[in-house]
Formats: sequence, structure tokens, C-alpha cells
Amino acid sequence: MSELNGAQALIRTLVGAGVDVCFGNPGTSEMHFVAALDSVPQMRGVLGLYEGVVTGAADGYARIAGKPAATLLHLGPGMVNGLANMHNARRAFTPMVNVIGDHATYHKQYDAPLESDIEPLSEWTRGWTRRAKHPADVGADAAAAVAAAQDPPGRPANLILPADVSWGEGGQVADPVPPRSRKPVGDDVIAQVAEVLASGEPAALLIGGPACGPDGLRAASRIAVGTGAKAFVETFPARLERGAGLPNIERLGYLAEQVQYQLTGIKHLIVAGTDAPVSFFAYPGKPSDLVPEGATVHVLADREHDVIAALAALADRSAPDAEPQLAEANRPALPSGDLTPQNWVEVVGALLPEGAIISDESNTSGVLLPMATAGAPQHTVLTLTGGAIGQGLPVSTGSAVAAPDRPVLNLQADGSAMYTISALWTQARENLDVTTVILNNAAYAILRMEMQRTGADLSGPAAKALLDLSRPTMDFTKIAEGMGVPASRATTCEEFAEALRRAFDEPGPHLIDAIVPPLL
Amino acid sequence: MSELNGAQALIRTLVGAGVDVCFGNPGTSEMHFVAALDSVPQMRGVLGLYEGVVTGAADGYARIAGKPAATLLHLGPGMVNGLANMHNARRAFTPMVNVIGDHATYHKQYDAPLESDIEPLSEWTRGWTRRAKHPADVGADAAAAVAAAQDPPGRPANLILPADVSWGEGGQVADPVPPRSRKPVGDDVIAQVAEVLASGEPAALLIGGPACGPDGLRAASRIAVGTGAKAFVETFPARLERGAGLPNIERLGYLAEQVQYQLTGIKHLIVAGTDAPVSFFAYPGKPSDLVPEGATVHVLADREHDVIAALAALADRSAPDAEPQLAEANRPALPSGDLTPQNWVEVVGALLPEGAIISDESNTSGVLLPMATAGAPQHTVLTLTGGAIGQGLPVSTGSAVAAPDRPVLNLQADGSAMYTISALWTQARENLDVTTVILNNAAYAILRMEMQRTGADLSGPAAKALLDLSRPTMDFTKIAEGMGVPASRATTCEEFAEALRRAFDEPGPHLIDAIVPPLL
Repeated sequence: MSELNGAQALIRTLVGAGVDVCFGNPGTSEMHFVAALDSVPQMRGVLGLYEGVVTGAADGYARIAGKPAATLLHLGPGMVNGLANMHNARRAFTPMVNVIGDHATYHKQYDAPLESDIEPLSEWTRGWTRRAKHPADVGADAAAAVAAAQDPPGRPANLILPADVSWGEGGQVADPVPPRSRKPVGDDVIAQVAEVLASGEPAALLIGGPACGPDGLRAASRIAVGTGAKAFVETFPARLERGAGLPNIERLGYLAEQVQYQLTGIKHLIVAGTDAPVSFFAYPGKPSDLVPEGATVHVLADREHDVIAALAALADRSAPDAEPQLAEANRPALPSGDLTPQNWVEVVGALLPEGAIISDESNTSGVLLPMATAGAPQHTVLTLTGGAIGQGLPVSTGSAVAAPDRPVLNLQADGSAMYTISALWTQARENLDVTTVILNNAAYAILRMEMQRTGADLSGPAAKALLDLSRPTMDFTKIAEGMGVPASRATTCEEFAEALRRAFDEPGPHLIDAIVPPLL
Repeated sequence: MSELNGAQALIRTLVGAGVDVCFGNPGTSEMHFVAALDSVPQMRGVLGLYEGVVTGAADGYARIAGKPAATLLHLGPGMVNGLANMHNARRAFTPMVNVIGDHATYHKQYDAPLESDIEPLSEWTRGWTRRAKHPADVGADAAAAVAAAQDPPGRPANLILPADVSWGEGGQVADPVPPRSRKPVGDDVIAQVAEVLASGEPAALLIGGPACGPDGLRAASRIAVGTGAKAFVETFPARLERGAGLPNIERLGYLAEQVQYQLTGIKHLIVAGTDAPVSFFAYPGKPSDLVPEGATVHVLADREHDVIAALAALADRSAPDAEPQLAEANRPALPSGDLTPQNWVEVVGALLPEGAIISDESNTSGVLLPMATAGAPQHTVLTLTGGAIGQGLPVSTGSAVAAPDRPVLNLQADGSAMYTISALWTQARENLDVTTVILNNAAYAILRMEMQRTGADLSGPAAKALLDLSRPTMDFTKIAEGMGVPASRATTCEEFAEALRRAFDEPGPHLIDAIVPPLL
């Protein structure tokens, strides 16, 4: 019999498998897990004041660290609070090990107030699920969870931990289980796609997933240069590398109309590491499938394939002599005057530091950002993969934990910010180098845009009130200061530039409440 | 063919069935529902900046109004954000009609980023579920939902509304469907319980649900006075009436040890409108079932029964001549000096206005509240029924919408406040007369207490950090002001009394950040 309890064996196994950060919001049923943290100092516990912060931070951490973090959640009601950002993580194919505490095995029958079924929630995440049964097995359960989280393409692994399995004696540490490798793409598939490209018919290449890193981007650019195919990055990449010295491949638009324009005349759509494009929402009388009529979709690599190798092989075959087209170093000039949706992105483009990580939930306010930052120093962009708002602040928090030496810039729409605003407190506690820019337009501006597209008449006062965030307009500087984050307000380009420079210069978190009128 | 679309028929049906408040946080798929609000001005739309605010407000509204509100939620990811407070509503047996927008029927197959399964989430609430299929039927669906929500004992009714059913033409308004009545308790049951009471063996009566109103309390008090049985109110009543002129029946404790003390020597436990007590959590070596060994449980009325009539009949039979024991008007004197867990409740007891509604999520800070307010003017207490923290602010918000003429006092633990803090913004927008008192002890104090009870050793720095809310300590005055709610800080009884008086005197929302050290 070992001298470890279940929680200690679990945490030691996680650390042995490389999972050494745990974002958590514990309750009574997790007290032995919390206590066990002190017996395994290699595990760093990070407190979030809300589970949506916890799961979003784990997503941001893994996107940057390239390995999963753990989360600690309190029973079903704690888990539900974390589900929206697990949805985003699912759509980002982010590996994540969620430890969900549950009542002691013998206590569940009593239907105590916090009792609920956890398995259906776990299934909702489309993740891996296991309920730990015995302290002696929980190490092996944890090792399996870490592997399952990382099996391509990546997913939430949900390990339900009853309190008595956590506190029970006889815990056994398990060896790491290596995750599966990505499947290689067969030569025949590469040859077929190469033939399509050689046909001379208009073609587009759409890349996603790991192909949005430097190697995938370079291969895609070579293909585009060498064959004349258009190249696009998926609309919401989990992690996209950008900036001077890297290919600047256009992202597919959010609006169906944009995508239809981008793919005009295409006869072949080659997808690599992502799926063929569909409309984000349905609109009366408009198509949901955004592949142009008559065009054929060719799958070079699906989500589980080694898409980078496949793109490189395709480039070698279809465009052996082509060099990738790289963005030149080129920053916009600092603009002046009142902030607008057009000029605030130029301030960012002018000042973005080398190696920055951008957590982008700027929504409508950020449509012009990609142009303004294309020639900035190399940086990483993390986007809102699943559309569940409230991701930007937690993702920036987790990415700063993963990369303490990189400046993190969170571009955050005001309405979405309120979903997980307490991430600011975690940034203050952990002294994370995150600069949050609130794009404060005092509206759910994206819905004002969408109303027109759905054909709904939202001109009445009741409807308008539900899309309006004024009365009162939020003062994010006070909200941030209330959570220990220094903050300032900017209404002009000059003020914004000064605040941004100061935020980048000083360590620790900052918030800038940027008053930017709505795009529309 | 009617000239209404599905959304218009739905809203008109809701209003016809008496549901005329809709708390919502819409997205693109709900735009036609939002637009339809202007065609049915009897429906009041109230915006929440987070779904946990929306569902918690609907819970508070129904507890006070005695009828359901509707909520409007955006797809699965919007619904998950509202689930924790739906869990609390489920445990309160609160009627609630949730309209959950979904992608258009033909769009779901495309697995767009926000796509998810909604039915499993709905089942998790243990509520009623229906997916609307056609604009012509959605009125009838809505009428069925309102009835299902109110069928005893009450529950969330979840109506999934695809966007094309919402925008499609041919909507038909449906007549209200009357909910079922509560089942009468048979005379035989009353006679059996009366016999138990007449046996002379030590007995206790535990009441819950609607029995926590004036009539149930009076009947329970008569039974206790006339038979010598002890009487208790369930630990977390959804709505409890209290104060001078009403019986002051002791609540069963939160801690298993308290309950064991309260029920010492009992041979018969009579439950009426609630369940026999169980421990909130499991603790190593301690019982989960809190009925004393050897005692017999007698069910006078379950959750679906007419518990008030049953108690009255039992009182008439067992204690025909007994008068209820009513609390006398008696307020504590205003204390002075630094705030403590002992004295802040006396300030509340001294100043609580007639007819106040208390939304109580004070957790450990509020253990002495019932004593201090027993002789205050009559008031209503709403408690954290399901244990999912983050309920107090939304419930106070919804109860103020339901009772604009009653002062609402939200006693709110600091850690829990951060879950749904944006409820303050809704209070500001709607100019609701809510006074929020943050019991700011800069800690998850309840977990510090629980750690000892679970036997976990949380003395190490890593564990301590996860229970500590200082570094930085939150400044709730700034957070409130950032959302448009006037705020002040109180560290002494004098400051607290002054702030509380001012908040009660002035209309609209206020927040008091009361610095109260932890109880333990």
C-alpha cells in the first residue's frame, strides 16, 4: 500500500506527464486535491474567480505551451460555468485535462443540493470522459486523460474525481502514456491534389489547425506562388503566426458575403487541417454552405493528419522552385485624432512589440486589424474559435502563464468582456504581463450588424434596448482598478498610443478603456 | 395563414399566459425574437450582460411574483452559462420558461462554430424540454411550457427555438394551459401523523417549499405549541417569510453537526413539503444521512402536495386550541466599533425596512443573521437553494423587477459575488431599488472552515493561495461604480449604518463594500 492518497497520486502523475499548471476554482469536495498541491511543488496552482476564467485560461495556456494544463472544477455546477470556454477549446482542438470533483461515491445517492449528473456535461464537450473509481487507479486514469487530451487533434479530457477517491489511501503514480502521432497523408492523396493544382482550373487552398504555424504558412505560400492557387487561412484559427518575415495569408471572412467574394470563380477548394467553410449563422434566403456552386472540395489533410508534412510534400511536388512570399517589415504611421474603428488598429500596428501574443476578441471593432499588423514584428494571434464570447480575457491570462517572457495583448470587445471580467484579478495576482484593450463602443455592435443580415426589424425601442450597452456606459478603468489592475482611458490616438507604450514598458497587467465608436 | 411570425406568436402566447417579463442575452439566432418584442409591448425585455444573471434574475422574479418569467438564451453556449442558476432554480422548484435559440433547422447539419446539442443540457436541469418544429405550433409549445413550468412543484421549462421557426410566417397564438393543482393530502395520512404526534415520543416537524409562507408557518407553530414537537424550516428555503408577527421557526443548520444537535433525541421526523435532511457534503467518517439513528421519517406532504392545507388540517386535528407563537417586534440596538461577523447583522436587524426582500448569499458571514432579524418588521428571505454560488446578485435583481415597491437587500459574500457581478449593471439600467452589501472578508472563508471538516491539511502555501482572495483584495466600490451603481465602503458599524440608511432612503441601486473579517 502506498502512502499517497488519490489526489497526491493524481497530481504526481500529471506532473510526470508534463502537466504542471492547474487553473482551478475548488470547493469542499476538492479540498484534498488542494491540500495535495503542497506535496507536489512542481504543480503550479492558479486561482480563477470563476470557472469560465479557469477553462479559458487552460485553453490559452495550451495554445501557447503546446501541452495541456489541468483545471480543477467543483462538481456539476462548477463545470457548467466552465463549459462555454470548453466549447471554444473544443473548436480550437486544444488539449486540456479537466479534473471535476464530485461527491463521495457513497454520498451521491442522497441527492444533496449540489448533486447533478456530470457525464452528460462531459459528453457535451465532445471530449474524453472517465469517472475515477479507486485511489489505486486514479494515477492511471490521469495518465490516460493526458494522452487522450493530446491524441490528435486534441480535446478536453474530463476526469471525474469523487471526493473519497481523492482522499482515499493507496494512490499509485502512473507512468506517462504517449499520445498517438498524427496520421501521415498518403502519397496518392498528395499526387491527386497536385494534379488538381496542375489542371489550370481556378483553385484555392484553405489551411487550418497546426498549418497556421510558420512551416505550414511557408508551404502554403509556396503552393500559391508556384501554382497560382489562392491561399486562405481558416476564419478562426486557434493559433496563427504572423508578421514581418512570415507569409501573410489572408483569413477567410466571418461574413458569408465576404467568403463568397473571396472564393469567387473557384473550381477546386483544397482543405488542409480544417473543414470546408460554412456560414456562422443561417440567414433567411442565404446559403449555409459557402463552397461556391460547382466547385469540388478536395481534402488534403483532415484534423488528425500531419498537415504540415502534407503541405510541404505538396509544395515540393507542385511548386518545387517556388519561394514563399514573406511579409516585409512595415508598420503604419501613428495616426492622430479621435479613435475610430479605422485608426485604433494602426496604433496597435505601430507599437506591437516583437514576440507579442494577441488574444483577439475585438469582434466588429477589429475587422481592420490584420491589415494594420501584417508587417509588424512576428507575433501570435489567438482567435475566438467557437464563437462563445468571454474567451479573450481568460485566454490572454493563460497564454501569459505559458509564456512569461512574451508581452500579451488582449483586444477585447466590451460586451464580451463582461462574461469573464474577473480574469483581471488573476492577472493581478499572478502579475501577468497582459495588456487588455477594451474596445468600448457601448453596444453589442455585432448584433446591430447581424440584425440587418437576418432581416429582423430592430428599430423599435424594446429591441434597441437589448443591443445597447449604454445607460449606463461601463467604466472599465474602475472595474479594472477594483480588481487590482492599473487602468487608463483613451479617446484619442495620442492617448491610446501613450497608454499602450506604458503598458508594454511596465511589467504586470494593464487595462486601457479605448472609446471607439461602433463600426456601423 | 396568420400574419404573425413564430416569435410574435410565441411572445403573445407568453403574455396571454401571464408571462410578461423576459430576461435575456440574445445573439444572432434570436434577432427575430428581439424584434418581435416591439410588436408586443406588454412583454418587458430586461437585458443581462451574462446568462447567469439572466437565469438567476428569472429565479428571483418568480420567487417573488409567484409566476414565471421567461429567459432568452443564445444557443447551447449561451445556455451553459445560465445552467448554474438554473440548478439553483431547480432546487428552489422555481417555475421558469427558458427560450433557447438554436440554429435554423437546415443549418444544424453544417456544424457551424456555435453548434452544440441542447437537449442534454436541458435534461441536466431536470426540467421540461421541447424543440419547436414549426411557426404554426410554437404558440402551443409556449403555452405548454408555461404550464409545465408551473405544474407542482415547479421547474425550468426549456423551449428550444430554431431561428427559422422564429422568423417563419404562420405563427398562431395559443390559449393559456392551466397548470395542474397541488395534490391533496389524504385524511388517512393526516390521521397517521396525528397519531405519531399524540404518542408522546419526541418528534420534530420539518417544513419546506410553500409551507415557509405565513399560513404554513402559523400551522407549524400551532402544531409545535400544541403537541410539544420541535419545528424546523428546511436549511435553504426558496422563500421564507419572517419578522415580527410571524412565527420564528428555526432553520435546520448547514453543518451536519448543527443538524445532529438540533435533532438530538428525536424519534419521529415529520417532513412536509421538503425532504429528510442530508449532509451538504460528505466528510470522512461522518454520516451523510442526518436523520438520527432509530428515528422514523413520516411524510406528511411531498413537494407536489398541497402542504399548506395539510399542515392546517394536521394543526386542527393535533392542536385544535393552540395559537401560533409569534415573534415580537424587537430590533437589536445599533452597535458601534469595527465591523465583525457578530455585529454587522445587528446593524441590518436595526435598520431593515418593512417589507424588505433579503437575497441571502452571505454564506459564513451571515450565520448570525436570523437571530438579529427575527423581530424586525416582516420581510422575505430568499436563500441559495442549490449551493451553486453566484445567485445572490441576480436573484435580488429579479426580485426587484417583480416587486418595484419593496426594498431589496442583497447580502453577498465576496467570492460568490464575482460569479455574476454584472447583475449590478442591470440594476443600474433598470434603476432597481437593490442594496447590495458585500461581506468582504477577502477569502473563500467557507472553504477554510470546510478544510478542517474534511480533514484536509491546507496549511501549505499552495493550498492557502487557492482559498485566499487577497493579493489583491477587491475594491467592490470601484467595480460597482464602473457599472453605474453608487457605492461606499464601511469598516465600522457607524459607517455601515449610515450607508445602509442612505441606500434604503434613496431609490435605485447601491452597493456597500463592508469589510468584515472572516468568522474563523
